[in-house]
Amino acid sequence: MTDAADPAGPPSGLPFVKGHGTENDFVLVPDREGLLDLTPDQVRALCDRRAGIGADGVIRVAPGTLAPFFMDYRNADGSLAEMCGNGARVFTRFLVDAGWTGPGPVTFETRAGLRTAEVGPDGDVTVGMGPAVLGAASAAVVGGVRYPGVAVDVGNPHLVCRLDGGLAELAALDLTRAPGVDAELFPAGVNVEFVVPLAPDRVRMRVHERGSGETRSCGTGTVAVATVALGWAGRSVGSVHVLVPGGAVRVDRTGQDSSLTGPAVLVATGHWTGT
Amino acid sequence: MTDAADPAGPPSGLPFVKGHGTENDFVLVPDREGLLDLTPDQVRALCDRRAGIGADGVIRVAPGTLAPFFMDYRNADGSLAEMCGNGARVFTRFLVDAGWTGPGPVTFETRAGLRTAEVGPDGDVTVGMGPAVLGAASAAVVGGVRYPGVAVDVGNPHLVCRLDGGLAELAALDLTRAPGVDAELFPAGVNVEFVVPLAPDRVRMRVHERGSGETRSCGTGTVAVATVALGWAGRSVGSVHVLVPGGAVRVDRTGQDSSLTGPAVLVATGHWTGT
Repeated sequence: MTDAADPAGPPSGLPFVKGHGTENDFVLVPDREGLLDLTPDQVRALCDRRAGIGADGVIRVAPGTLAPFFMDYRNADGSLAEMCGNGARVFTRFLVDAGWTGPGPVTFETRAGLRTAEVGPDGDVTVGMGPAVLGAASAAVVGGVRYPGVAVDVGNPHLVCRLDGGLAELAALDLTRAPGVDAELFPAGVNVEFVVPLAPDRVRMRVHERGSGETRSCGTGTVAVATVALGWAGRSVGSVHVLVPGGAVRVDRTGQDSSLTGPAVLVATGHWTGT
Repeated sequence: MTDAADPAGPPSGLPFVKGHGTENDFVLVPDREGLLDLTPDQVRALCDRRAGIGADGVIRVAPGTLAPFFMDYRNADGSLAEMCGNGARVFTRFLVDAGWTGPGPVTFETRAGLRTAEVGPDGDVTVGMGPAVLGAASAAVVGGVRYPGVAVDVGNPHLVCRLDGGLAELAALDLTRAPGVDAELFPAGVNVEFVVPLAPDRVRMRVHERGSGETRSCGTGTVAVATVALGWAGRSVGSVHVLVPGGAVRVDRTGQDSSLTGPAVLVATGHWTGT
């Protein structure tokens, strides 16, 4: 209650930055000395969209042990998460804008391993996403309709289903409930992407994330979709523009590895004084 | 991108405070000199729950012409609003915590006229809500079921419907769509409250706000409900505890005027650097 209310007073509370990547939003908590012990209760309070600041997750920006920085990502429910492609772009934007790292590639630690990212000349951020591996054919059921698809492993499980009814069919899908999927193939659940091809290198998608419902964007989901879309075009490497409800990203696939390029925006900085 | 990222740097951007009253949440924009001209686009951007900070509305804290302060309330869609009971509590909390006013009653201007509020010894805030006037008998229809009710004018229109099926019936109501109402009696729409009496001075309610859908709390709605609930108990004045999804408030009715007492919490302060 000091810096905005009384610019002369010293700020108090927990410093934070809010940002988003294609409307997947995060509260970043800078912790340069690695001294903070965020509790699940604090994470839930920060992410509460009415009583808190509100976000899809919290990213503590901390020192790493294998790299200078550690992206400590927590889900809005307080649980730990391995990696988040949209969050990694926002994390990188913070490191550069705050001057914690210079221009050029920066390598940081996540619970899924090391990742390298870079802010490009146009301001978009590119993050290495690691391998994406095609799996078995399967299907998702929405509103009694069966949509054939293919499993893709991007560190987390995805099922990519192509729609042939165009954008109208995509828009009409009721994703307020989880699509029906093969529970034997996906014992830990699955993120389901529904995709309409617009051009050989351009698709539009919607995504239902396990545990979260439909979201505005899913970074690993765009990589899964691009991997499958390249196959539709008879390719295994190349670039795909992926339009999601929250914006647009580009996936570049070289061999089995992919990189994700898209916007990362910081919109506010301040101090959390709640409990 | 300065105060959280680099405590030594000067803050930049638009100063803001985020707070809520029974989970009705607001971005407050301190404007002590009355120099800011908030545009509808800015209000929408601030209230965007993914790409912005996120809130039900924006309150510019500005100098008044009839009183020292003006509560310039804007809806999340950028439109102007007259008054908001939960917002008035958060506005008052800000004035006191920021030191813009001392302890004791503070009178401020709203588009609905002057209001007086005070932070109590327990930290709750009491706001004078003006008159609430009982109107005609009517009914709301939800899921094909007709719920008899009574109209109440609290500056804005309300329809208060009593449920006799208890808390289970209240919890089961599907308020994802607007209840059916008498369009001749409510030509400008109506906020509909569904109420279960728990004791002569205690009720639980849910509310569907015109234009917003179901909300966690509605200040004028609690006043409307308390006015009707006092009648059920054979009284026209007195106190009623009103439990809403976002918390609990107390309404005190003396003659036709009412005051609303409840929590008001400031959770963050900072600078908006978005556009």
